[in-house]
Amino acid sequence: MALHDREGGGTAAPNGQLVEEVPLVHKVLVPPPGGIFKEVGQGIWETFFYDAPVDRFRGITIASLAIPQDLGYSKLAGVPPVNGLYSSFVPPLIYSVLGSSRDIAIGPVAVVSLLMGTLLKQEISPTEQPALYLQLAFTATFFAGIFQTGLGILRLGFVIQFLSHAAIVGFMAGAAVTIALQQLKGLLNITNFTTDTDFVSVMKSVFGHIDEWNWRSIVIGLAFLSFLVAAKVLAKKKPKLFWVSAIAPLTSVILATVFVFVFRADKRGVKVVGHIKQGVNPSSADQLLFTGKYVGAAAKIGLVTSLIALTEGVAIGRTFAALRDYHIDGNKEMIAFGIMNICGSLTSCYCATGSFSRSAVNYQAGVKTAMANVVMAITVLITLLFLTPLFKYTPNTILSAIIISAVLSLIDFKAAWIIWKIDKFDFLATLGAFFGVFFVSVEIGLLIAVCISFVKILFNVTRPHTALLGNIPGTNVYRNLQQYPKATVAPGIVAVRVDAAIYFSNSQYIHDKALRYVEDEMAKPGSTPIQYLIIDLTPVTNIDTSGIIAMEELQRILKKRKIQLAFANPGSQVIQKFDSSGLLEELGSEWIFFTVGEAVQVCSMFLNKAAGEGSV
Amino acid sequence: MALHDREGGGTAAPNGQLVEEVPLVHKVLVPPPGGIFKEVGQGIWETFFYDAPVDRFRGITIASLAIPQDLGYSKLAGVPPVNGLYSSFVPPLIYSVLGSSRDIAIGPVAVVSLLMGTLLKQEISPTEQPALYLQLAFTATFFAGIFQTGLGILRLGFVIQFLSHAAIVGFMAGAAVTIALQQLKGLLNITNFTTDTDFVSVMKSVFGHIDEWNWRSIVIGLAFLSFLVAAKVLAKKKPKLFWVSAIAPLTSVILATVFVFVFRADKRGVKVVGHIKQGVNPSSADQLLFTGKYVGAAAKIGLVTSLIALTEGVAIGRTFAALRDYHIDGNKEMIAFGIMNICGSLTSCYCATGSFSRSAVNYQAGVKTAMANVVMAITVLITLLFLTPLFKYTPNTILSAIIISAVLSLIDFKAAWIIWKIDKFDFLATLGAFFGVFFVSVEIGLLIAVCISFVKILFNVTRPHTALLGNIPGTNVYRNLQQYPKATVAPGIVAVRVDAAIYFSNSQYIHDKALRYVEDEMAKPGSTPIQYLIIDLTPVTNIDTSGIIAMEELQRILKKRKIQLAFANPGSQVIQKFDSSGLLEELGSEWIFFTVGEAVQVCSMFLNKAAGEGSV
Repeated sequence: MALHDREGGGTAAPNGQLVEEVPLVHKVLVPPPGGIFKEVGQGIWETFFYDAPVDRFRGITIASLAIPQDLGYSKLAGVPPVNGLYSSFVPPLIYSVLGSSRDIAIGPVAVVSLLMGTLLKQEISPTEQPALYLQLAFTATFFAGIFQTGLGILRLGFVIQFLSHAAIVGFMAGAAVTIALQQLKGLLNITNFTTDTDFVSVMKSVFGHIDEWNWRSIVIGLAFLSFLVAAKVLAKKKPKLFWVSAIAPLTSVILATVFVFVFRADKRGVKVVGHIKQGVNPSSADQLLFTGKYVGAAAKIGLVTSLIALTEGVAIGRTFAALRDYHIDGNKEMIAFGIMNICGSLTSCYCATGSFSRSAVNYQAGVKTAMANVVMAITVLITLLFLTPLFKYTPNTILSAIIISAVLSLIDFKAAWIIWKIDKFDFLATLGAFFGVFFVSVEIGLLIAVCISFVKILFNVTRPHTALLGNIPGTNVYRNLQQYPKATVAPGIVAVRVDAAIYFSNSQYIHDKALRYVEDEMAKPGSTPIQYLIIDLTPVTNIDTSGIIAMEELQRILKKRKIQLAFANPGSQVIQKFDSSGLLEELGSEWIFFTVGEAVQVCSMFLNKAAGEGSV
Repeated sequence: MALHDREGGGTAAPNGQLVEEVPLVHKVLVPPPGGIFKEVGQGIWETFFYDAPVDRFRGITIASLAIPQDLGYSKLAGVPPVNGLYSSFVPPLIYSVLGSSRDIAIGPVAVVSLLMGTLLKQEISPTEQPALYLQLAFTATFFAGIFQTGLGILRLGFVIQFLSHAAIVGFMAGAAVTIALQQLKGLLNITNFTTDTDFVSVMKSVFGHIDEWNWRSIVIGLAFLSFLVAAKVLAKKKPKLFWVSAIAPLTSVILATVFVFVFRADKRGVKVVGHIKQGVNPSSADQLLFTGKYVGAAAKIGLVTSLIALTEGVAIGRTFAALRDYHIDGNKEMIAFGIMNICGSLTSCYCATGSFSRSAVNYQAGVKTAMANVVMAITVLITLLFLTPLFKYTPNTILSAIIISAVLSLIDFKAAWIIWKIDKFDFLATLGAFFGVFFVSVEIGLLIAVCISFVKILFNVTRPHTALLGNIPGTNVYRNLQQYPKATVAPGIVAVRVDAAIYFSNSQYIHDKALRYVEDEMAKPGSTPIQYLIIDLTPVTNIDTSGIIAMEELQRILKKRKIQLAFANPGSQVIQKFDSSGLLEELGSEWIFFTVGEAVQVCSMFLNKAAGEGSV
């Protein structure tokens, strides 16, 4: 499962036509606007950072992306902005010691923040009981850490593989749109905004409070949003200029803050971040709720959040490890995430994980060690210690613009298009998860994604593929008759291949299906009566007691119908179980063949002999 | 999945040693006691039924088994005895019209009665609020019918295949032991008996109330229990005498009732069934609870009960259909069960399903049509209309003895022994389910059974089998090197077979495993550098988008390491998806081969050519 970085703009039409011709896109498209900013940005960059003494200082690039994101994402989670900054200080430090990815950048991320905020708000109102809300957030983070560590230690990493790629693409896109819609609150300067996240509620909030809209806020927001999107498009087209999109958010924050301060726009209704407490993470160990009525809720929220955070974090780690060709130990990685969140929950942080946008900048910047996380953490520390007063006049609208431009990359039209091309059922899963998040809530979308993924597994497990085999003329190879219609069938013999391990969940189906093949063949007009059923067990890696019982029953039924059952190429585990169960003895070991070809040869010989005797 | 009928006695030692030598058992064992009863019973039978005018009247045999069982099982469910009789009247009639099995006998069964009783008692006390308890029982039965019909209509029959054979064997044995232990109440004549079903609670109840024990009750119970078990053993050894064990319960009831009546043992503390309301099933349509706080509980109990009833009923139907070689449509069967339970819930019945002991008698009696259910229903009707006063003096102890002898057949030592021989993991599932029921409750045992079954599926789904392939000398066949150690490997080439469809749940694992094979081969001392990885896709019936992405990533990583990826024998769906995703184009269609043999031939040719050029 890979999360592809994408420009949020127009290069990928929803119908995906252009995407298929990606190589052409570079030549055809008109250069995007924003060249002026690029030049300015480049100038600034070249001036200050071009000859940065050591490679690791490139971690500062991520910090310039991280700080504005942290302030914005904390709003999604419903916690004060300073907790967003805290979460970009302690967790990255812990990860740099324990983690195995060299590329991943740690911090709060949009989807986990939204998910956590949605779930927390169902329990406690962040406006009415902010202190208790924060306590629940820390407790949920603590449980998330415990679950992640536990999954890693118990080597249960495979649980996060139960969300199919298709479901994730839909879920992520839905979450991105939901997050972007939530930003209309900041962008339009609305005070009374719904706490629901579905499209209908948000639209009602937006158009029900037109009187609250503030044109200054809207102008600042849209102007910087255009700049940010343009910077992203530029970086996409000219990967060398990645740093433009990397520093664009911090540049925007600085410019917008100066603008608000100079023109005192905050006095004309433009909402600002306001006072942020100065200083390093305070301890929150005494704030965790281990008794009382919220423990269960915290554990539940922790569980859901931990799994989504792992899914995202581990996927990002694997994606970059594949790009650079090194291995990541999924279980070790989960332990690292877990311990970092446990430590985070004790130091006023909420759930952190690997951030795709920052990791991508990291990768593009050519950072090759996990030190980037340390440099980012130190930069965040310096911000916490000295620079938080500077954010007092930062308008909320700029944070909204930064978040919108960040989450647009989560809408992966290209992936959706590929899914549509490859597998229509998968595409349904994508749509289901997307619309679940879009029209209902992030929880329901997630539930739909999980359910669809499970239905697919169950379907696969209970209805395995079987094929009627035929001989490819001129060879002794037997292949699926549907795929190779020219393959020939020996009269009186049915050869069937079972394409899955035979377990309790499918043994009855395989038993019935094998009989049906025989009956269908016999029902064909003018066919020789079937006297042999050969089951090719090549793909059958294992069989359990239910499977053995089904095969024994099949053998008994066939015997009554005077049809001989034969098996071709059973694996070592299968033949052992045939033996220990007594099926081998009952059947006769002469009816176990090395290949389907040999089985058909022997059966044909018997048939010809019988026919010869009959005609004599 | 088959439920084997078993004698409850000593022929199958728990260590299973004798079972393996089943053919010998007949010769070696001493004839069981009870010959005198047999002779008497045979005499009675011959006198009255030997020349029964039509075959269908053999249904009376089942009725003689059914009526005492109904009276006893109703106690397990916590409902009055008459509701047990009602449940053997309406449901069999409905099934005889809708059902597709010719052998199955319908009525209340032990495990479903126990399960339903356990769940109902968690909501309402049957002694404190008997009327409400009965209402909840009818409502749960109604919901059970709705779920069964729904599963059938939606063709979701496969859900009942999610309980593995091994888990069912353990669960059934645990339930049988639990039910037998519960009968100590009736056998020992204890009044204050625990409502818990775990071993420890029951033993406390039994030995905490030694003062309540009644020796008359114990003597009657044990004497008839010996007779019943002896009759079963006899029937097992001489199948022609099956009718002895069939009429033994009713004979016991008659003899014990006469005994109690004549000696007025009821006046000396031997508890009797007492008054049973005369008359046909009254309507219970107005008693169903569709509003109020118990609806949710009724639906939950209905769901659990319906699934266990289906698992048992459908398995019995299939077992006998296989014996007689006819087909049963699982979905149609579920609809029949569902409608019969809906109708039952409206006519004062509780959940009915196929009964193994009665179906076995049916089969042994040579009944070949579903009319047996009609005959049994009519017999039960006659009993309800005229004979219920006769049960007034029937001692509870005889019902307990009948139930103990009936449920002993559910303890399938032979199946457990076979499971142990075939699959140790499956045996753990058996033990887990058994001890869950035995030491905790029937619910927890069931939960353990379901969880173990699911863990097995998940393990199978996420960790598919893969094999390193080698050439069988003298053929062009490639097989698992572990199974055929003499198979040879071409230098510089790794051939791997993936034995499962490649889906999101296993794609990452397969990707990692394939790379590991290459790395392991390269790590071998003195090995040629690997230049080709051939993946045999014969068993890979399908691949989804996650699988395609994993293969693309694999291809990219291998390319970086200068290793060429090749695929052998992709199925039609797989090659289509390779094509539509663009992987085929990226890889080059020349690297898709018909067989592993051809792939190795081509790769070897390239290798030799390169070596030749290198040496020149």
